[in-house]
Amino acid sequence: MKGTMLYGPGDVRFEERPDPVIIEPTDAIIRLPATCVCGSDLWPYRGVDPVTKSMAMGHEYVGIVEEVGNAVRNIKPGQFVVGSFFASDNTCEVCRAGYHSSCIHRQPGAPTGAQAQFARIPLADGTLVATPDLPPDDLIPSLLSASDVLGTGWFGAVAAAVGPGRTVAVVGDGAVGLLAILAAAQMGAERIIAMSRHEDRQKLALEFGATDIVTERGDEGAAQIKELTNGLGAHSVIEAVGTQESLMQAIHATRPGGHVGFTGVFHDVAIPGEEFFFSHVHLHGGPAPVRRFLPELIDLIWNRKINPGKVFDLTLPLEQVAEGYRAMDERRAIKVLLHP
Amino acid sequence: MKGTMLYGPGDVRFEERPDPVIIEPTDAIIRLPATCVCGSDLWPYRGVDPVTKSMAMGHEYVGIVEEVGNAVRNIKPGQFVVGSFFASDNTCEVCRAGYHSSCIHRQPGAPTGAQAQFARIPLADGTLVATPDLPPDDLIPSLLSASDVLGTGWFGAVAAAVGPGRTVAVVGDGAVGLLAILAAAQMGAERIIAMSRHEDRQKLALEFGATDIVTERGDEGAAQIKELTNGLGAHSVIEAVGTQESLMQAIHATRPGGHVGFTGVFHDVAIPGEEFFFSHVHLHGGPAPVRRFLPELIDLIWNRKINPGKVFDLTLPLEQVAEGYRAMDERRAIKVLLHP
Repeated sequence: MKGTMLYGPGDVRFEERPDPVIIEPTDAIIRLPATCVCGSDLWPYRGVDPVTKSMAMGHEYVGIVEEVGNAVRNIKPGQFVVGSFFASDNTCEVCRAGYHSSCIHRQPGAPTGAQAQFARIPLADGTLVATPDLPPDDLIPSLLSASDVLGTGWFGAVAAAVGPGRTVAVVGDGAVGLLAILAAAQMGAERIIAMSRHEDRQKLALEFGATDIVTERGDEGAAQIKELTNGLGAHSVIEAVGTQESLMQAIHATRPGGHVGFTGVFHDVAIPGEEFFFSHVHLHGGPAPVRRFLPELIDLIWNRKINPGKVFDLTLPLEQVAEGYRAMDERRAIKVLLHP
Repeated sequence: MKGTMLYGPGDVRFEERPDPVIIEPTDAIIRLPATCVCGSDLWPYRGVDPVTKSMAMGHEYVGIVEEVGNAVRNIKPGQFVVGSFFASDNTCEVCRAGYHSSCIHRQPGAPTGAQAQFARIPLADGTLVATPDLPPDDLIPSLLSASDVLGTGWFGAVAAAVGPGRTVAVVGDGAVGLLAILAAAQMGAERIIAMSRHEDRQKLALEFGATDIVTERGDEGAAQIKELTNGLGAHSVIEAVGTQESLMQAIHATRPGGHVGFTGVFHDVAIPGEEFFFSHVHLHGGPAPVRRFLPELIDLIWNRKINPGKVFDLTLPLEQVAEGYRAMDERRAIKVLLHP
């Protein structure tokens, strides 16, 4: 098959790769009708995360099951399935508590890379969720978004304790931040403040349910949020970037007793103890346990209650994956969909 | 009157002070039948918190109301009242959400110092809670503990989401840690692991409801907690010290999806972002909103359901307050009760 490898900063190659095969009896092999580039792929692409050896890229996927190992019970060839970036058994105590991305048997969700024609998925019964039927083509982008960016934005909203009557602010206008807005709207938030300075993203934010836009960043942005919330700050702030500045912006924008939910892997972040102590905020997040939310998200997409696939604003053939990285790196695209 | 001043590290003086008087119409003046020394008083006493000018000491208090300002409606002279270390209006949006210690009108709870014969209490109607009647003498230590260490330990347990069926670990065997154990037992925790290496404190921990004792500290202590919890860590960990080591011990002892509740003011703490991200724990705490819990705590004490006053293991006349500081500094006493 053909798949995507990263050889070093900026060096993305679409090339011949071994066909994935069943290794463990709990594996499945899926064929990918669409895949995509993630904001987190840009960390190694930009050299922020060091690339010490070539890496198979891509961890967001939907697919048609081609083959399953002989210990797989529930997932069957021919099904259309959605997975996520960690494989999980869905049975351990941690999974049962909803933290599949810390499953005691956790492993990478698509170790052979999902920016490819085929992928091997470990722990298929625990990791994959089948759709009710083969989906119409127009639902595929939304189902693919559930695999990571929607599931991650959703977790951010849950971690930030979003609910009816709450005022929510979202730091970060990438795909995760935008879909956190959609999630907050679904969860009944009263007011949703998008923090964005890009017109195209503001537009999508409003379409997904944002009620206000704040363009300032950092402490100025936090001050704006306070001004909009009677001097107190938002009840719930979703941090969807992962830098020191964005996290502090989120903490400063939250009222005492409020919640910060974070979803972007922290890079060079150290939370100052004393300041955090007196902030009185709740802090929760981490790698999103997307698997927890997949049945609900698939249901919402299947019944066309939500249209998260709109975050894909550029579609390319899979062989042009390198251009997809460039477009996202240069912020010419929010998120790039790739078709084999 | 006479009261306690700190002039510099180790320099505690019990000396003549001006009688407190009503300054704001919302003030009350109370006479203190008992007061005490707090673990947090040791930070400036030891010079860890700099002492730039002389400070009136003491922030834990119960008392008989002597006089109220003319805007005080509910608190009346002659009542026995319990307050806490922040004065709060109990009506603002932050108080209504339960975060009285971040009240928008927050001020020190006993600005004239509570290691004294009398104290001025601001925002009396919001800050003070009256007992059903004048208490018998033997309840006074417990009511005094509600003012800070019990209320703080209780908040730690709430912040750590303690509840039935949960396994709880407590880092720190000072008065707050010990009373967090009592709180966890009241909240129905299934298992309560005290982390303590002092025999007298272990004994009190067991009396308050601890089911297990772990004597190791730091990562070894966290490893012990994991060993006791099927390799996963506790559901809820209460951090009652406030140092980098104790906070990391708490985070490392918590399972993914679990909760760390912290109560001790952080000193030289920086939470490492990436490690925290992948820990998947919930983190919450700060200055305990003791006022939120006072009605419930007074009720439990009044009806002799709990006996938190046991944390006072040394009683001294108020004029020997300096010896009280020494005894706590040298860990000869868990907590010192002072009688005028």
